[in-house]
Amino acid sequence: MPAAFQFRLIATDGAARCGEIATPHGVVATPAFMPVGTQATVKGMLPQAVRAGGADIVLGNTYHLMLRPGAERIAALGGLHTFMNWPHAILTDSGGFQVMSLAGLRKVEERGVTFRSHLDGAMVELTPERAIEVQALLGSDIAMQLDECVALPAPRADLERAMRLSLRWAERSKRAFEAVPAGAALFGIVQGGDDAALRSASAQALVDIGFDGYAIGGLAVGEPQATMLAVVAAVTALLPAARPRYLMGVGTPEDLLEAVARGIDMFDCVLPTRNGRHGVAFTRFGPINLKNARHADDPRPLDPDDAGEGGHSRAYLHHLVKANEMLGAVLLSQANICYYQALMQGMRAAIQAGQFDDFRRASVEQWRKGDLAPHA
Amino acid sequence: MPAAFQFRLIATDGAARCGEIATPHGVVATPAFMPVGTQATVKGMLPQAVRAGGADIVLGNTYHLMLRPGAERIAALGGLHTFMNWPHAILTDSGGFQVMSLAGLRKVEERGVTFRSHLDGAMVELTPERAIEVQALLGSDIAMQLDECVALPAPRADLERAMRLSLRWAERSKRAFEAVPAGAALFGIVQGGDDAALRSASAQALVDIGFDGYAIGGLAVGEPQATMLAVVAAVTALLPAARPRYLMGVGTPEDLLEAVARGIDMFDCVLPTRNGRHGVAFTRFGPINLKNARHADDPRPLDPDDAGEGGHSRAYLHHLVKANEMLGAVLLSQANICYYQALMQGMRAAIQAGQFDDFRRASVEQWRKGDLAPHA
Repeated sequence: MPAAFQFRLIATDGAARCGEIATPHGVVATPAFMPVGTQATVKGMLPQAVRAGGADIVLGNTYHLMLRPGAERIAALGGLHTFMNWPHAILTDSGGFQVMSLAGLRKVEERGVTFRSHLDGAMVELTPERAIEVQALLGSDIAMQLDECVALPAPRADLERAMRLSLRWAERSKRAFEAVPAGAALFGIVQGGDDAALRSASAQALVDIGFDGYAIGGLAVGEPQATMLAVVAAVTALLPAARPRYLMGVGTPEDLLEAVARGIDMFDCVLPTRNGRHGVAFTRFGPINLKNARHADDPRPLDPDDAGEGGHSRAYLHHLVKANEMLGAVLLSQANICYYQALMQGMRAAIQAGQFDDFRRASVEQWRKGDLAPHA
Repeated sequence: MPAAFQFRLIATDGAARCGEIATPHGVVATPAFMPVGTQATVKGMLPQAVRAGGADIVLGNTYHLMLRPGAERIAALGGLHTFMNWPHAILTDSGGFQVMSLAGLRKVEERGVTFRSHLDGAMVELTPERAIEVQALLGSDIAMQLDECVALPAPRADLERAMRLSLRWAERSKRAFEAVPAGAALFGIVQGGDDAALRSASAQALVDIGFDGYAIGGLAVGEPQATMLAVVAAVTALLPAARPRYLMGVGTPEDLLEAVARGIDMFDCVLPTRNGRHGVAFTRFGPINLKNARHADDPRPLDPDDAGEGGHSRAYLHHLVKANEMLGAVLLSQANICYYQALMQGMRAAIQAGQFDDFRRASVEQWRKGDLAPHA
């Protein structure tokens, strides 16, 4: 019988935490980065490559999957794990964020949100109950409540209205989740924008309802990094230590490091695969733009100490990117996912060793120092 | 010390031949299919996947590589094998075919061909001597002479002029090849279109010059399959048994089977990767168009007996193709290269067992029978 959801804290170092989430599809070491499998695929990567890169868990997008190929179809085909050949853990979002950012015409009401599909123009309704139903059909290990996310900056009244609505949807999500087979988990989502009082009210109310884990939504939506980190620090201080905390849609390597320093356990972001498709590699030396002509004759791999991208030279990666070859996107997506996972692994080890601050300082210093000197 | 080029005939069955080509970068089992690595990458495939699919050799395009990233640059980076992480054999074409099909404004003269690069509009000259030099810079295991290829149908006078010019270029290519380090091989190219007398004259003259192997060019350029196969049969009958024969730019699985039946040992074609990118899989049951809605709910893999594409369902492949996901192109390119290689492996085994005709009949019958019944 598969394990039910459970979080175990292994070590803390300041506010930084290292732990383990047991799920019906395996254990997730935290702090964890979840590659984004938007349309049932981490773009450009074989599932084996995602796993080999070090991921214990990927994210699936409810919005995309419910529209194509359809949640009922995926359920009939054995669920999302089988469909996308990913036997490890899957977290699904609720669809709310994409409805706000991708769908055409949309109407937010107490009952839920109605929107026009960006694929075929059909009108679709997403309620808290339907979001849970869809995630159950997908067979998600960790489901998210439906919430309303507001882009920043925004008037306080808008932030409060969306936060209160999200809380009512949180209660309905929890009730709906009672019908979902045991083992999976449901996370609530703290909203409230950049307003400390709203964030505090949201966190407190969600903890009162009681969830398996808590996400912080509505960040990385236009605000400065300092604002984001201040909200993260204030919110994590209000959340129970025994539950995992997930910062949604974040971020750069530096964002991850700083958010872990403030008590976050889980992340998802399209940045490593999206930037990989656009010719940018994340490395110990900071981002490297392979389009740059200075790489054209460079026989060195991205990181001389790292076999992650399989020994391909910078010259070759530059050529593939310039020639718009699919393999360039594949190799850089893979290299970036590997780097993100190596960074998480480094953080986990540092927290367990009680040396997180040293690791953080050394990482930031190396990023700031920049890339290797040009090849002579 | 790496082995020098050598061809060993292992078995024949009718006109069909099974053999081995030794090269400085490993042995190539024949009949061989060479995946096309146009721009130093077999499109959408990691080199390890190309190898795992069963390829002993890939083709590199001189035209593309000399324009970008440049032959001198690849040489400085250690040659094409190192550049593209393919330690196995490489055959390079001479660039002539792409000059005719891709370049803008071009002028064919006795000395060579001058053309406008499709990348930056620069005027570039390609002579028989430069084509050999470029291929030596790439570090090719098997180089091709520069030739002029004429699309069919064409007036006899045009075919004859191009054939005679190609013969004079063949002699110059052979002389130029004397400067290339030992180990690599040079193939001549039979031209003459669909004219039996011209083909015969071309083949005879090339054999008199003497090459390590003989290619048949100027086919699969618009003529019916029957015409192509008639030319193949007529030409192979004139070529020495002790040298490999290469049918350039061919073809469909059925083309390969019929050309092997007429004495061909080597092939290259973009079809498996190009069609894979466009959602079409080659299988034992003939081509399958994954765009077709009948696959949307089908949990079966492409071929229930084949683990080649990693157990992904037709429903998943259909979804990836419809969603225009890179992974669809990756998986279908891989599946098609695997199928082509399995077909070659089947032919080699059948020839050695003296059962090539049975294999050919059974393969054609299964293709004609078509795909599995739709999933109930």
